[in-house]
Amino acid sequence: MIKNTNNLGVFFNPKSIAIIGASDTLKFGYAMTNYLLNSEFKTYPVNIKKREILGHKAFKSIIDIPDNIELAIIIVPNDQVLDAVKDCVKKQVKGIIIETAGFAETGIEKYIKIQQEIEKIAHETKIRIIGPNCVGITNFKNKFTTTEIEFTKVLDAGKISIIAQSGVLGNIFIDWGASQKIAFSKSITLGNKVDVDEVDMLEFLENDADTEVIALYLEGVKRGKKLLEVLRKLTKPVIILKNGRSEIGSNAIKSHTGSIAGDDKIFDAIFKQFSGIYRVNNFFEMFDIAQVFATQPLIPGKNIAIITASGSLGALACDEIEKVGLNLAPLNVSTKENMKLIAPNWTSLRNPVDLGPSLLMTFKPALEALMNDENVDAILYIFTVPRKPLEDFSIPITPQLSEIRNYVKRFKKPLIICVFGSRWVLDYFLKDSTKYQIPIMTRVDHAIKAFKVMYDFKNRNKS
Amino acid sequence: MIKNTNNLGVFFNPKSIAIIGASDTLKFGYAMTNYLLNSEFKTYPVNIKKREILGHKAFKSIIDIPDNIELAIIIVPNDQVLDAVKDCVKKQVKGIIIETAGFAETGIEKYIKIQQEIEKIAHETKIRIIGPNCVGITNFKNKFTTTEIEFTKVLDAGKISIIAQSGVLGNIFIDWGASQKIAFSKSITLGNKVDVDEVDMLEFLENDADTEVIALYLEGVKRGKKLLEVLRKLTKPVIILKNGRSEIGSNAIKSHTGSIAGDDKIFDAIFKQFSGIYRVNNFFEMFDIAQVFATQPLIPGKNIAIITASGSLGALACDEIEKVGLNLAPLNVSTKENMKLIAPNWTSLRNPVDLGPSLLMTFKPALEALMNDENVDAILYIFTVPRKPLEDFSIPITPQLSEIRNYVKRFKKPLIICVFGSRWVLDYFLKDSTKYQIPIMTRVDHAIKAFKVMYDFKNRNKS
Repeated sequence: MIKNTNNLGVFFNPKSIAIIGASDTLKFGYAMTNYLLNSEFKTYPVNIKKREILGHKAFKSIIDIPDNIELAIIIVPNDQVLDAVKDCVKKQVKGIIIETAGFAETGIEKYIKIQQEIEKIAHETKIRIIGPNCVGITNFKNKFTTTEIEFTKVLDAGKISIIAQSGVLGNIFIDWGASQKIAFSKSITLGNKVDVDEVDMLEFLENDADTEVIALYLEGVKRGKKLLEVLRKLTKPVIILKNGRSEIGSNAIKSHTGSIAGDDKIFDAIFKQFSGIYRVNNFFEMFDIAQVFATQPLIPGKNIAIITASGSLGALACDEIEKVGLNLAPLNVSTKENMKLIAPNWTSLRNPVDLGPSLLMTFKPALEALMNDENVDAILYIFTVPRKPLEDFSIPITPQLSEIRNYVKRFKKPLIICVFGSRWVLDYFLKDSTKYQIPIMTRVDHAIKAFKVMYDFKNRNKS
Repeated sequence: MIKNTNNLGVFFNPKSIAIIGASDTLKFGYAMTNYLLNSEFKTYPVNIKKREILGHKAFKSIIDIPDNIELAIIIVPNDQVLDAVKDCVKKQVKGIIIETAGFAETGIEKYIKIQQEIEKIAHETKIRIIGPNCVGITNFKNKFTTTEIEFTKVLDAGKISIIAQSGVLGNIFIDWGASQKIAFSKSITLGNKVDVDEVDMLEFLENDADTEVIALYLEGVKRGKKLLEVLRKLTKPVIILKNGRSEIGSNAIKSHTGSIAGDDKIFDAIFKQFSGIYRVNNFFEMFDIAQVFATQPLIPGKNIAIITASGSLGALACDEIEKVGLNLAPLNVSTKENMKLIAPNWTSLRNPVDLGPSLLMTFKPALEALMNDENVDAILYIFTVPRKPLEDFSIPITPQLSEIRNYVKRFKKPLIICVFGSRWVLDYFLKDSTKYQIPIMTRVDHAIKAFKVMYDFKNRNKS
């Protein structure tokens, strides 16, 4: 059966849904069942033992539902999954998400065989299957989800889409993103990949108007050659985190999703070959970099200016700039002269521009001077004012963010804010960061790496 | 003048204090002046223009104060600092902290000379001088500070002491520590180091009963040979962050505190030579590792067990374990058998132990089995349960923390918790982490590095 990615839309906007294994007791899948039954998405609960679930009529089998079903979500115990899939075939659903775990990843013969049976069904029918051993998908635009996220507690849709094997990216990092004001477009967890894999989803997201940057968490690859083909053609930036750099890590992956991690060095070489594909070291770096792509103009060159109240953090940022191969911008004489007019005599007006405790008063004219300097391509603003003066004198940060946004748009130069200090100071920036589309992070190394990745993306050669 | 470190106590517990340049308007030093004048520390404001500061009689000069003064804090503009220091000499103070910036770090001849004059005075008298260009010190035990921190918003005294050139460590990272429930003993910022330097302070903290681990942020060293001597003798662990790995970073340091960063490769070689001294890459890693020393028993061996609900994060932790040269603990057969009795059939009971969504129910017996296993030396607990079920079912975390503490004490094996997800879940753990003395962090790489540093410390050879 030749399959294409045109039919993946059913996973993100199904007209009708059946939850097979729907339950009204505290267990995996309860929150999702509760959400979907009370949502605008037409949802039918299926439960062999109950006649009602959370006030909705429950059906013994998907076959009994007096309606067409586009998408089936399966959360019954692993022993019952194969029968549920067979029922879905009879019902002629378009898509199935199997969330249940306990298949090839257990290493147990019996469950490996069940997974193979399901795989066979996927190959012999037109039905697309995601999973097993996953939490499915979330579409932040229409608020459809098969996970446990709460839309009241996450942000409105953004432009970052995530593909992962692992459930941890289906809700845990979505929760984290909301705390950090990082907004997502679509998140997809693939689990053991009996059918739909990262190749399908990369093709789908390349053509998705709501996705500007793709975060891909990879544990293992089945269709390596096809993945390379797709990566070569992509026009959107892809930030990749791949587990299993170590031998013991590879073994852990095998028992996690039953995938083979593959030779990590081969992956590394391949990723480096493709422009537009960037490997990162952890989830936080992945989302910090994606957020810069989602909110900032592409960096025009490699000269970075730093503006801060902390000479130490400025110096640390310089170490990172040199490490990744960017430049510390050599400021124009006129830029320094302009800054001298506004800054106290004890400030350091070389780059990094260290305004010390005068930062709150002198930030705006200093930023303007730097944005105006044609030797400056991007600005890192390291904010290190303690909580006390901000609170004591009720200094609002909104005017700064608003000005920053204006300069970013006018000069088409990206800016990142690194905030250090108490949670209170971080939140004080995050409060309005979505409105003004300024990436806020706590790690200078992530900010500099984001500029570097942007620079490489701007200068990539697509074959 | 031969100086020893016996006379540094005046900086941490002065009997009487003068603030030269005390001010009641919004500027650097206001918060400190306000705090000290209203504290139990006998404090006199000195201001050439005002007769009263915040309800306290102000003196034109420190000489006019009708009382002995042990410690003078100088915050007048840089042009007036030398005269203020000369007055302090006449007054026969024991210690001076010069917070004012604008000396050698400006690169301007005039200010370099003023700094040299002050340095001369320090060498010719018994007076110990900290600074200029710093925020001085904080003693968390008696709540004495020359910085802008607020004791109502930080934690009670802990066992970690910090030495730094930079003001950012005097308050910014103290604020951050409080958000993260990392408690400190003493923090010292040294600035341009005309007299007191890291050598003095390391000797002082080695003999300080309230300090168990030292975090040292180094930008440049003047007495290199002496520093090596002291580092060789120390019995407490020292976590070092040194800026200026790069050439441009070194230049930035020069304009920050006027120090020469020195050849970074030489420092690296030196740090590696000394057991008990560990170099880290950033402030967060520094404090996360220090926190593990401050709260956990020393790791007995190199075998790490991982317990989690996320196979992905477990696999990532394995990569880190291999990277630093620790071992993934080979579990005893009986440990796995014991866990099989309590965990669902779809969980992975190899190490990493992946309990999936069953984590909340199966954590305790699984932890007990791992602690009981003589092949396990330390445990990393990666918590990845989403906010929703925790909130919906009001699951308390306190019993888990309490049990963890009991096991840590009983088996003398360190445990670190890495928490992923929303800020809410992190705070849910942090609420009681101080009480139960469990280090909570968000980075698996920091946790594994902490175990590695502990392992090296345990097995160090002191000459």
